[in-house]
Amino acid sequence: MINFETSPEQYNHWKLSVDGPVATLSMDVQEDETLNEGYKLKLNSYDLGVDIELSDAVQRLRFEHPEVKVVLVTSLKPRIFCAGANIYMLGTSAHGFKVNFCKFTNETRCSIEDASRHSGQRYVAALNGTASGGGYELAIACDEIYLVDDGNSAVSLPEVPLLGVLPGTGGLTRLVDKRKVRRDRADVFSTLAEGLKAKRAAEWGLIDGHFPTSKFQAGVKERVEKIVESEGQRNVGPGIKLNPLDVEITDAGREYRHVSLKLKREGRYAELTVRGPSGNQPSSVDEIVAHGDAYWPLRAYRELDDALLYLRLNEPEIGLVLLRTEGEIDDVLAVDRTLVENRDHWLVREIILNMARVLRRLDLTAKSFFALAGPQSCFAGNLLELLLASDRSYMLGDPDQKIELAVGELSAGALPMSNGLTRLQSRFLAEPHRADEVLAHVGRFDTEEADDAGLVTFAPDDLDWDDEIRVAVEERTSLSPDALTGMEASLRFAGPETMDTKIYGRLTAWQNWIFQRPNAVGPQGALTNYGKPTQPQFDYKRT
Amino acid sequence: MINFETSPEQYNHWKLSVDGPVATLSMDVQEDETLNEGYKLKLNSYDLGVDIELSDAVQRLRFEHPEVKVVLVTSLKPRIFCAGANIYMLGTSAHGFKVNFCKFTNETRCSIEDASRHSGQRYVAALNGTASGGGYELAIACDEIYLVDDGNSAVSLPEVPLLGVLPGTGGLTRLVDKRKVRRDRADVFSTLAEGLKAKRAAEWGLIDGHFPTSKFQAGVKERVEKIVESEGQRNVGPGIKLNPLDVEITDAGREYRHVSLKLKREGRYAELTVRGPSGNQPSSVDEIVAHGDAYWPLRAYRELDDALLYLRLNEPEIGLVLLRTEGEIDDVLAVDRTLVENRDHWLVREIILNMARVLRRLDLTAKSFFALAGPQSCFAGNLLELLLASDRSYMLGDPDQKIELAVGELSAGALPMSNGLTRLQSRFLAEPHRADEVLAHVGRFDTEEADDAGLVTFAPDDLDWDDEIRVAVEERTSLSPDALTGMEASLRFAGPETMDTKIYGRLTAWQNWIFQRPNAVGPQGALTNYGKPTQPQFDYKRT
Repeated sequence: MINFETSPEQYNHWKLSVDGPVATLSMDVQEDETLNEGYKLKLNSYDLGVDIELSDAVQRLRFEHPEVKVVLVTSLKPRIFCAGANIYMLGTSAHGFKVNFCKFTNETRCSIEDASRHSGQRYVAALNGTASGGGYELAIACDEIYLVDDGNSAVSLPEVPLLGVLPGTGGLTRLVDKRKVRRDRADVFSTLAEGLKAKRAAEWGLIDGHFPTSKFQAGVKERVEKIVESEGQRNVGPGIKLNPLDVEITDAGREYRHVSLKLKREGRYAELTVRGPSGNQPSSVDEIVAHGDAYWPLRAYRELDDALLYLRLNEPEIGLVLLRTEGEIDDVLAVDRTLVENRDHWLVREIILNMARVLRRLDLTAKSFFALAGPQSCFAGNLLELLLASDRSYMLGDPDQKIELAVGELSAGALPMSNGLTRLQSRFLAEPHRADEVLAHVGRFDTEEADDAGLVTFAPDDLDWDDEIRVAVEERTSLSPDALTGMEASLRFAGPETMDTKIYGRLTAWQNWIFQRPNAVGPQGALTNYGKPTQPQFDYKRT
Repeated sequence: MINFETSPEQYNHWKLSVDGPVATLSMDVQEDETLNEGYKLKLNSYDLGVDIELSDAVQRLRFEHPEVKVVLVTSLKPRIFCAGANIYMLGTSAHGFKVNFCKFTNETRCSIEDASRHSGQRYVAALNGTASGGGYELAIACDEIYLVDDGNSAVSLPEVPLLGVLPGTGGLTRLVDKRKVRRDRADVFSTLAEGLKAKRAAEWGLIDGHFPTSKFQAGVKERVEKIVESEGQRNVGPGIKLNPLDVEITDAGREYRHVSLKLKREGRYAELTVRGPSGNQPSSVDEIVAHGDAYWPLRAYRELDDALLYLRLNEPEIGLVLLRTEGEIDDVLAVDRTLVENRDHWLVREIILNMARVLRRLDLTAKSFFALAGPQSCFAGNLLELLLASDRSYMLGDPDQKIELAVGELSAGALPMSNGLTRLQSRFLAEPHRADEVLAHVGRFDTEEADDAGLVTFAPDDLDWDDEIRVAVEERTSLSPDALTGMEASLRFAGPETMDTKIYGRLTAWQNWIFQRPNAVGPQGALTNYGKPTQPQFDYKRT
């Protein structure tokens, strides 16, 4: 079982040190500390285990070290920054694992950009040696890139010429969309196995600067100090500690404090329930800070995140997630109000940003989600987003019971999808005024009102409910999982596209395609034959 | 060999009739008139041959019948509009063919929308019976959709539930992005094999209206008349005839009047040369009309279009196209000036719109393009777009010869890419002022100026030229064709996305992936087993 929880004391591959406003995140991959067997992580190449640590570090820097203004990403290996995803790991992994591995590494890189954009933690890649493939893709997720000019070190994306696959972690998209490298130069660079050294890399906009070996550390330091200075004073911290989640793991599922995951493996679905807040909740920033990671919106969403990642990587045959909530609508709305009232406080801001990231993780999860609003449900405020993020929603229509939804202020923009829209905007593309009407609605929505407002897909009555849900589950889980993945990726992201959606939609889909082409993974494919004395043999038909 | 030229007299599957401002395009697929063997085109299902006729009809309506304001698309088969792409044809086709078939049908549907948007030819789908799969995708490419309400006829996208693949002709994207159907309803609709009948289809926004059988013809007629009226008076026509292209076909290539295609099959590349205009060219609209389809910018681009389609479908192993031009820069620029000066005339507008479509066909062709600017080249005006559309460009630097580029006014917006940008904007995303500077440049660019302006990738001198081109060709044609296709699809379309780019990038890539998944095309896959007594068996792992 792949475990996504870790902490700096347990890191094998990264050293995290914090010195006032500057954190240094140093890659020093231990080649034998692999997640699976059959490969060694040479030359700072990585597998999912390495990236789980990186993801954890990016997350902790925001919550535990909010005073940090610059994160310096570098390597402790001489003459090598990072060689990218380990090729033997890729060559020996199942298709589904490769795809989910790439998705997670993409999310980590997007979380770096999210920290830079929203938390004022700027990332500087100090390439003390060659950054190839995923190594350069990690660098290009940072705000600035500096390369040592030692006559040897280069940046490169050698996937196409060496491996017959694409750079799978956003490299191509960030090349032309983030750094806006001219497309013909991007073409040359992406087909040049050896990449480009400092001078030309800077000319073409692949890096932001370079220094000779003797001046590299001082040059980078000077730049880092400038950024620290330009970020100005900030009233933040001290940070709060992110403690391990308390989860009870059985074969039947995972029980967290606020989240319950029940696996129905024989039916190929899972039941995921998020419990709303209960008991006294903080109402001031002092109380929020005192609660720390026990505060419901932080804890519950960390648990939800862990459950989603668990499902993706460990339960591939589960194709459908039935999403439920349990609790009091008023309690959820009260938490939302506290968050909104105190959103200028750094910790509250981080809590909301984290909720947004977890919801985007759900949007991007290749499983179907059906939201079920029945008795005791509390799809309200931030939890209404779970219903809006689902592929469908069912709300019980029962005159004898109070079943309601409620909208809160966070749905107005604080929890955007990857395409930049709110889930309400995305839902009502045809009638934008409906999103405004939902937001302006006073009080709760009963089933009929929710149906009229367009918030739910179906509203069966209590006589039909059980049958309708049962049939829907059976139908959904009987369909081709591949067709569903492609369909959901198309229907979930209507409207505008952003660099993120291009990475998850366009680039990922092409990479998935290539990841199963014989030219890459067949017995004579380039990925299969990398590092072997045999040469790849291509079927040269263009598709 | 698949031939893309046809004309109404030769149509097997469509009847085109024109009655003043209204054209009727009626589908009546002859089940035995197939492009390949092994399947019958029952129930108005289609193969590439059917779509080649549709594409021809859409094109001819613009040039030969500019007076047409509404094109009514309907079927001559009772109770069936169109059953979509023929499933047995898909099941027996090679992967590359399926992908290129879908691309062409997508381009045809985009050309319908292009005719509606830019030529004032509105398309109305009169669904006199069920429209399923590609049948509904054809309807959704039209401006308005009317369905007969006979208690039986439905619209549907049954690909996911029945075939384990995606609707491959833009259906999912148009559902949520064009018709802006709510994503949860789109989810239900796209997983419902039987689809939705008139009433609910209208409620959910899948169609624009419905009429009972007895009132269907009259109801549609009334709507058509309203559109004709609302389009107002127009000063167009008479149309010009699009005559067959005069092409000399040998095993070594295709020689058109202005285009030459030489196949270097052993090297897996082709040499495609477009010759600029020569001799006296029309300078007034009367002369342009008199020239008709012999006018260079119409003829040359029709030939280029045919050559590109030929390469895509008939020469899959050719992975690289060396693009050259031959002629006088002044002559190309003179044609451009005439076009720009007379662009308000309907025929000139159509000629320019066609050039734009052909250039977009090039952008979307899954082959590498290298532009070579040497002696006698005329990459100027509209032909400069060929160089800008290429993945790379090489320009000879030779002080003893005059080698020049020139920009014309058409590059400022008349020939947009699918993403809505000009090729200059797309090239200079990082420095938008450079696009303006190129457009404002007085006179021609010699090699050094072109290089400085960022117009060319490499500018080798005459000593290096032959070797550099030879090595570049050898390198490119040695790479994995799949990786190149994915890479080019990512690098060519930086910047904004549109419905078109989503269809070609996101949806197509997912469909290509699914088209080779065992769950679709394996021995137990859904596509393979459709219509057989055997049931598909899925590997339920979600990817």
